[in-house]
Amino acid sequence: MEMATDAYKPRAVVLLSGGLDSTTVAADVRARGFDVYAMSFDYGQRHRFELEAAARVAAWVGAVRHEVVEIDLRAFGGSALTDDIDVPKGDALDAGEGIPVTYVPARNTVFLSFALAWAEVLGSKDIFLGVNALDYSGYPDCRPEFIRAYERMARLATKAGVEGDDELTIHAPLIDLTKAEIISLGLRHGVDYGMTTSCYDPAGDGRPCGRCDSCRLRLRGFEQAGAADPLRYQQEASR
Amino acid sequence: MEMATDAYKPRAVVLLSGGLDSTTVAADVRARGFDVYAMSFDYGQRHRFELEAAARVAAWVGAVRHEVVEIDLRAFGGSALTDDIDVPKGDALDAGEGIPVTYVPARNTVFLSFALAWAEVLGSKDIFLGVNALDYSGYPDCRPEFIRAYERMARLATKAGVEGDDELTIHAPLIDLTKAEIISLGLRHGVDYGMTTSCYDPAGDGRPCGRCDSCRLRLRGFEQAGAADPLRYQQEASR
Repeated sequence: MEMATDAYKPRAVVLLSGGLDSTTVAADVRARGFDVYAMSFDYGQRHRFELEAAARVAAWVGAVRHEVVEIDLRAFGGSALTDDIDVPKGDALDAGEGIPVTYVPARNTVFLSFALAWAEVLGSKDIFLGVNALDYSGYPDCRPEFIRAYERMARLATKAGVEGDDELTIHAPLIDLTKAEIISLGLRHGVDYGMTTSCYDPAGDGRPCGRCDSCRLRLRGFEQAGAADPLRYQQEASR
Repeated sequence: MEMATDAYKPRAVVLLSGGLDSTTVAADVRARGFDVYAMSFDYGQRHRFELEAAARVAAWVGAVRHEVVEIDLRAFGGSALTDDIDVPKGDALDAGEGIPVTYVPARNTVFLSFALAWAEVLGSKDIFLGVNALDYSGYPDCRPEFIRAYERMARLATKAGVEGDDELTIHAPLIDLTKAEIISLGLRHGVDYGMTTSCYDPAGDGRPCGRCDSCRLRLRGFEQAGAADPLRYQQEASR
C-alpha cells in the first residue's frame, strides 16, 4: 500500500458504476493516497440513475477526471439489464445456483479493457474495480481467477509489458469481503451511501424497489453491518 | 480444422478492419467452413476508407452479419492513428526498434473484448483476428504470448468457462506468416486486394500514399509474393 506525499500522487483508474461496491472502492483508493481517475460506462442501462450516482460519487471523492464511455452492448443482446427481459424478483436470492439472467456478456472484460487503455495513456499502474466473490451472484467475470488472468493478459498487452515493466495491477479490494464488511469499510471512509444506487428496477423518481436481488443483498448487508441504509425504498415493508 | 456440412456451419467472429491481413483471414475462415460474423470498429479513424473497405469485404465473403461498433478511443489520446500526430514516413521501416507512434493503447484488447461479448451471445467458440508477429512493427498486442494470455482470460470470463466448457479459441492464423505468405494465401482464396486499404495517410480520394510503414510493408509483400498490388498509388515512383 503506497502512501503519497503532497508532491506526488500515483494515478489510479477506478471503475465507478455509482453502486455501493464501486463507491466504497473509490473512497478506499483515495484513502490509499492515489489520485482518482474515475471511469463509468453508458451501455444502454435502462435507467440513468446509475450515471447520475457515479457523477455524484466522482465529485465527492475528488476525482481528477470522470470519463463516461459510451458503448453499445445492446447490439449483442443477452441480458435483462440492457434488454427488455423481466428482472427477477424475490425468493431467488438464496437459491444462488447458476448464472443470473442479469448477466451482461463479457462486461467486466470490456470495461477493464477501456480502463487499461486509459491507464496506459495516464501512465497509471493501478486499476481498481469493485467485484466481489462472496456476493458475486454467479457472474463468471467477478471471480478471483478471472481477475488474475486479466492482469496477466494486461501486462502483455501494453508497452510496459514489452519493456519488461510488469507492475500493472488489477486491484479488486472487495473480492473477499461480505456486503456487510464492504459497507463497514465505506462508513469508516465517510461514505454517504445515499449517493449510491443499487436497484435493478427503480421507480421513475429513482427510488429502489427493495425486492430485486441487488436491493436485497444491499439491505441484508446494512442489517448485518448494524447500519441504516439512507436510501428511501418504494416498499418499506420489504425491509 | 472443422469442415461444415450444408446442414450446420459453426459461427466464427472475425475482426475485420478492411485491411490486407483481416481480409485474408475472413477469406480463410470462410474456406474453413464457418459462417462469418464480421466485426469492425469505428474508433475515430482519421479516414472512412477503412470502414468502406470492411463493408466491401464483408459483402464479398458473405458474412451473415457485419457489426460496426462505435467506440471512442480518442478520449484517451496517445496515437497517430486517432490524434493529430504526424504519421511517420519513409526510412523508419527497417529501423524497427521500439513501439511506433501509430500504436493505439490496448486496441486489440478492446476489440477482442467486444468480439468475446458477441461470441458469447452467438454461441460461437471461435474468434479470428489478423495479427502478425513477423511484420508486427512492435505492437505489444500482436505478439503470440498476448494472444494466448487473452485466450486464457477469455475462457474464465464467460459462462462457458464457468460451466467447464473451455473450447473458446482465439485464432491468429497469420501470426507466423510473412506479408508475402499472407498475400499468397489470400490469392489462393480468390481475394481481390483491390477491395482492401492499408494506408495510414490516404489522399482525399482514398488513394494510398505508398510511403507510410503500412504501404511499404504491403508493397514489399506483393513484390516478394511475385504478384501485382491492384491498388493505384499516389506516387507510383515509390514502388
